[in-house]
Amino acid sequence: MTDFAQWMQAQGARTEAALQAALPDANTVPHTLHEAMRYAALSGGKRVRPLLVHAAGEVSGADPAACDAAACAVEMIHAYSLVHDDMPCMDDDDLRRGRPTVHKAYDEATALLVGDALQTQAFIVLAGAEAVAPAARLKLVAELALASGSTGMAGGQAIDLQNVGRAMTRDALEAMHRMKTGALLRASVRMGALCGEIDAQGLAALDRYAAAVGLAFQVVDDILDVTADTATLGKTAGKDAAHDKPTYVSLMGLEAARELAGALRADAHQALAGFGDRAARLADLADLIVLRTH
Amino acid sequence: MTDFAQWMQAQGARTEAALQAALPDANTVPHTLHEAMRYAALSGGKRVRPLLVHAAGEVSGADPAACDAAACAVEMIHAYSLVHDDMPCMDDDDLRRGRPTVHKAYDEATALLVGDALQTQAFIVLAGAEAVAPAARLKLVAELALASGSTGMAGGQAIDLQNVGRAMTRDALEAMHRMKTGALLRASVRMGALCGEIDAQGLAALDRYAAAVGLAFQVVDDILDVTADTATLGKTAGKDAAHDKPTYVSLMGLEAARELAGALRADAHQALAGFGDRAARLADLADLIVLRTH
Repeated sequence: MTDFAQWMQAQGARTEAALQAALPDANTVPHTLHEAMRYAALSGGKRVRPLLVHAAGEVSGADPAACDAAACAVEMIHAYSLVHDDMPCMDDDDLRRGRPTVHKAYDEATALLVGDALQTQAFIVLAGAEAVAPAARLKLVAELALASGSTGMAGGQAIDLQNVGRAMTRDALEAMHRMKTGALLRASVRMGALCGEIDAQGLAALDRYAAAVGLAFQVVDDILDVTADTATLGKTAGKDAAHDKPTYVSLMGLEAARELAGALRADAHQALAGFGDRAARLADLADLIVLRTH
Repeated sequence: MTDFAQWMQAQGARTEAALQAALPDANTVPHTLHEAMRYAALSGGKRVRPLLVHAAGEVSGADPAACDAAACAVEMIHAYSLVHDDMPCMDDDDLRRGRPTVHKAYDEATALLVGDALQTQAFIVLAGAEAVAPAARLKLVAELALASGSTGMAGGQAIDLQNVGRAMTRDALEAMHRMKTGALLRASVRMGALCGEIDAQGLAALDRYAAAVGLAFQVVDDILDVTADTATLGKTAGKDAAHDKPTYVSLMGLEAARELAGALRADAHQALAGFGDRAARLADLADLIVLRTH
């Protein structure tokens, strides 16, 4: 196993344990809500955002224990967005990570509340993150909230919905994805770095890295939607085309989309040049995001 | 006009202006989402929670400007909960504050995102509240998140849904309402106080006040659901009975519910005894909540 594979495995286990502890116990009232929150947030997934948090924490010399709260919080926000996105009034999807979506496994009302409460739980976890100094903790809250709200993730989702079945320019598609997925990936990187010591120049370099990786993530998602099958993806393949959603593949063709992903990967690596070895894990993650098969 | 009526009017105008400024501009992308967020949060309402914030701020000598962010944040959380509660998979209500609910005025997907983004906006506002010292700001985030999450408001909502059509003991009903509405009312009082100087004993007295007022609020809501008409309420009257929901009226009868509301009002006043004149507005608000007709 490579160093990176070992690191991934260790961080994955670490995040799993941290999430287990940061989510309300299923034995606490209300049982069903808590059970469903755990179902949504502990159902595997790639844990890309927590990995970005910890990898960015290595750049700024953060204590991994200090990064745990940020890793849990971004993953909870991500999990909440998936639960709500899957609901019948949004993407209406029955399958997520190879299992029934929350509104299928439970019901719509529970899915609505699970998403609501997972969002809140992210802020509960950050506000109570004793391993992070109060001033930094407040910055983490601000970063996460701004990235998740109406000019970030939720706003990107709104623009996405408005454009189903409509033609979109590449600029408009990119602006949408910068909000819908890019903002939270960027927040993951920044929050990890803010758990340690980082100057404005360092943060700017990380922003450039995050912009490239965020966009690459979406381009690869669009590629996989047409090239992978449902079993490999763990979610319904081909659904963008079925829903007539504008994607990088529909806009530029498969080959050009692959070239774009490669160029973004190179840009991500360049952005990290000034950090030396401390950024090795972030570089590895850029590769992983571009080269993944699901 | 009484002193209190003048104070209410001034605080109402103050909160309206603060909310106008704290909500994203409808000219900012995504326009529809921002327009709908403003529709949901600026549609009038009684502004009980912001009033509690400012009244509690008077107890602890807080600068009203410092209380504005807390007032906006609790009102945004309240507004988000109403938008989601009204959705078809929850209470399925068409009317709120005398106007179409968000999913009727827009659509379900927009209502879902409006609620999501209003919740986030509350934390954006608190994290950016420059008029509050960073340590106190972090406390505000923690108070609001804990009150809103799965062991507070969202959890109470889940318990409420589980019990539609089922018999409930008075203890169970009270526990449910402590979470569903009591937690956020309590947070409003505590957050207002935390914007100024307050000791543990003072906070404990405010907790007792908030417990009484929170319960009274719900008892009066249940009474009004059977005694007021839809036009007066600005929302559908009689819907608890129609949905076979357990209420204080169905459990103890109208007369006993009225007596309970009166006893809770007296308890709220007693809890404030140690504060003297500084708590005059909180006392007035307890009266308002019990004596209101809508």
